[in-house]
Amino acid sequence: MNIYLDNAATTRCLPEAAEACSHVLTECYGNPSSLHTMGMNAENYLKDCRKTIASTLKTSPKEIVFTSGGTESNNLAIWGSARARKRRGRHIITTMIEHPSVYNTFAALSDEEWDVTYLPVDNNGVLSLEVLEKSLREDTVLVSVMHVNNEIGTIEPVEEIAKLIHRLSPKALFHVDAIQSYGKLPLYPGSIGIDLLSVSGHKLHAPKGSGFLYINEKAHILPLLYGGGQEGTMRSGTENVPAIAGLDVAVQEVFKDQSSNTDRMYSLRHELIRRLSRIDGISLNGYKDERSAPHIVSLTIEGVRAEVMLHALEAKGIFVSSGSACSSNRPSVSRTLTAIGLKGDALENTIRLSFSIHTTPEEIADAADAIEEQAALLSRFKRK
Amino acid sequence: MNIYLDNAATTRCLPEAAEACSHVLTECYGNPSSLHTMGMNAENYLKDCRKTIASTLKTSPKEIVFTSGGTESNNLAIWGSARARKRRGRHIITTMIEHPSVYNTFAALSDEEWDVTYLPVDNNGVLSLEVLEKSLREDTVLVSVMHVNNEIGTIEPVEEIAKLIHRLSPKALFHVDAIQSYGKLPLYPGSIGIDLLSVSGHKLHAPKGSGFLYINEKAHILPLLYGGGQEGTMRSGTENVPAIAGLDVAVQEVFKDQSSNTDRMYSLRHELIRRLSRIDGISLNGYKDERSAPHIVSLTIEGVRAEVMLHALEAKGIFVSSGSACSSNRPSVSRTLTAIGLKGDALENTIRLSFSIHTTPEEIADAADAIEEQAALLSRFKRK
Repeated sequence: MNIYLDNAATTRCLPEAAEACSHVLTECYGNPSSLHTMGMNAENYLKDCRKTIASTLKTSPKEIVFTSGGTESNNLAIWGSARARKRRGRHIITTMIEHPSVYNTFAALSDEEWDVTYLPVDNNGVLSLEVLEKSLREDTVLVSVMHVNNEIGTIEPVEEIAKLIHRLSPKALFHVDAIQSYGKLPLYPGSIGIDLLSVSGHKLHAPKGSGFLYINEKAHILPLLYGGGQEGTMRSGTENVPAIAGLDVAVQEVFKDQSSNTDRMYSLRHELIRRLSRIDGISLNGYKDERSAPHIVSLTIEGVRAEVMLHALEAKGIFVSSGSACSSNRPSVSRTLTAIGLKGDALENTIRLSFSIHTTPEEIADAADAIEEQAALLSRFKRK
Repeated sequence: MNIYLDNAATTRCLPEAAEACSHVLTECYGNPSSLHTMGMNAENYLKDCRKTIASTLKTSPKEIVFTSGGTESNNLAIWGSARARKRRGRHIITTMIEHPSVYNTFAALSDEEWDVTYLPVDNNGVLSLEVLEKSLREDTVLVSVMHVNNEIGTIEPVEEIAKLIHRLSPKALFHVDAIQSYGKLPLYPGSIGIDLLSVSGHKLHAPKGSGFLYINEKAHILPLLYGGGQEGTMRSGTENVPAIAGLDVAVQEVFKDQSSNTDRMYSLRHELIRRLSRIDGISLNGYKDERSAPHIVSLTIEGVRAEVMLHALEAKGIFVSSGSACSSNRPSVSRTLTAIGLKGDALENTIRLSFSIHTTPEEIADAADAIEEQAALLSRFKRK
């Protein structure tokens, strides 16, 4: 039996969500833009899902724009804000530890003559309010900070960040990449001053190809995709109704027991860290307590390259990540691990384990046993 | 039993394609960027589909970039070309009858200080080579012309257009929106000088959320979505593996009997036109012969508003379109119908019927009967 601990990369779609998707593909396949009942039936799936999502965020349904996933949501938020506000200011801010879909989008804007500030974080991956405060300017028009880091799990203080931004840079929109936190940690963007918030469906058991961007009704941004004017003109293109129908099912399921699921994942995380941190040569990156998200554990294992450990675990049916899986197979030094101060071999000796709501204590015990065993077998320093 | 004649808006997903999609969602759900076998298994679906598509277009698999659908493919082609070539020239050309995902993207570029030429077409919807020739300039960097018009079915002479562009505007890329023609009319972009070609999956029985852009290996464009660098950096974001697995199945099925399917749809089209064109007050828009695509019929019915006819037919279980369904419910005067010379009431009295490979002669006979009957009942001119 396989033990899948790479849920921060992608999750298994819930069978009920896949069934909803399949039903729409073959039975309710109308185009929501069609004026006949088959179009209207399709549109109802969009309405229902928009309502479901809005209730989880305590927003209005019309503030939810469906996209093809997290990368598109992040790109829409960033390009859309920058293009809409370029006459008000050309300064934009993000952190050194963002996901590539944020970081590389800022880099692309930098090539188009935007003035970009990349902020450092501390040794646990936290953006300090003092550092942010110094960077905020009169002409800052966008700040993007992730809620939960995808490699080490650290939670950023987005509520305090929002206050600071709106006090010091009134022209700025605040975007939060909530791709790793949605469904795990409660966050209500409207009430705390988040203008834009990105979510990906396939990180929470919904079909790949689903996702959304929350856009506060007062925040004006420009679209990324032009065309038929779907999604209130913010995202043209025939809506991915089957994936959205699946998203609706998955969001309902995940939020039904959100807080007990989160508690359970925290217990698993504590147990895994307790088991492994007593072993010489294994160290945790980031926080061990609730200042981290419940589902991500980053471990540096002295003398064992991540890929070697990954394949050794895979041989036992245990699937983990050698860092972030979002970078298309291309090995590169992790910006996050570098930013929190890892150096040299430690950067290459770090693996990530990530849980889902279905991960069990038995799976965690087996994974801990396997890591302990393989660390002893594989670590070069023990062979000396 | 319903008769679905709105296949130019969207098609029913093949059950086999939906099954493939479902299987990937729940069983082979790895992230193609993950280094373990679950990632590699997922990546194999992408490789297989890329190879299938490449063989249908006689291109190299690496010239195929997966997107979320037709609108994204068109936007990627247009924004990507314009942004990559802005230092070589600022003039871009398209036609008056493009789909909104092309036309409105050109309009957005016009707002960003691009010099846009919108070319007229003749009374059958054809772009004349003389008209195009006069508009081509030294600083033209992009020309976008659709292969088949989505409202009236007219085929544009893309092969001759390609030659003219490359002779007179050597800096220009030629983009073809092939969303209505792929799988129906053979087209080999590499051999005839098409640099970029857009396709949508859900127009040919594949899952919504699938699609691709062919990018000739010599054509350099910039991405629209930045991030993990998937699709050879041309389209970041976790690939929609389940939808792509379904696309592979659908493309194979559609191309298995492509030419006989096309012949059969042409017979249906001829029969429908033969039946209806003998009726007073009903006229066909565009060509009745093979200068039109096989699956689209545009009819103007004197004295009967499209929406009235649409709902009258719907009451009999027949689903047609009151024009293009790609414009998100917003009624607006059709650019295509205006461009071919329709005026006044005729613009509002036009319906579109569109077939799929599964449409039968019986369905066409029933639809013709129903239209004939309803036209007599509903037309105001007959009541006079």
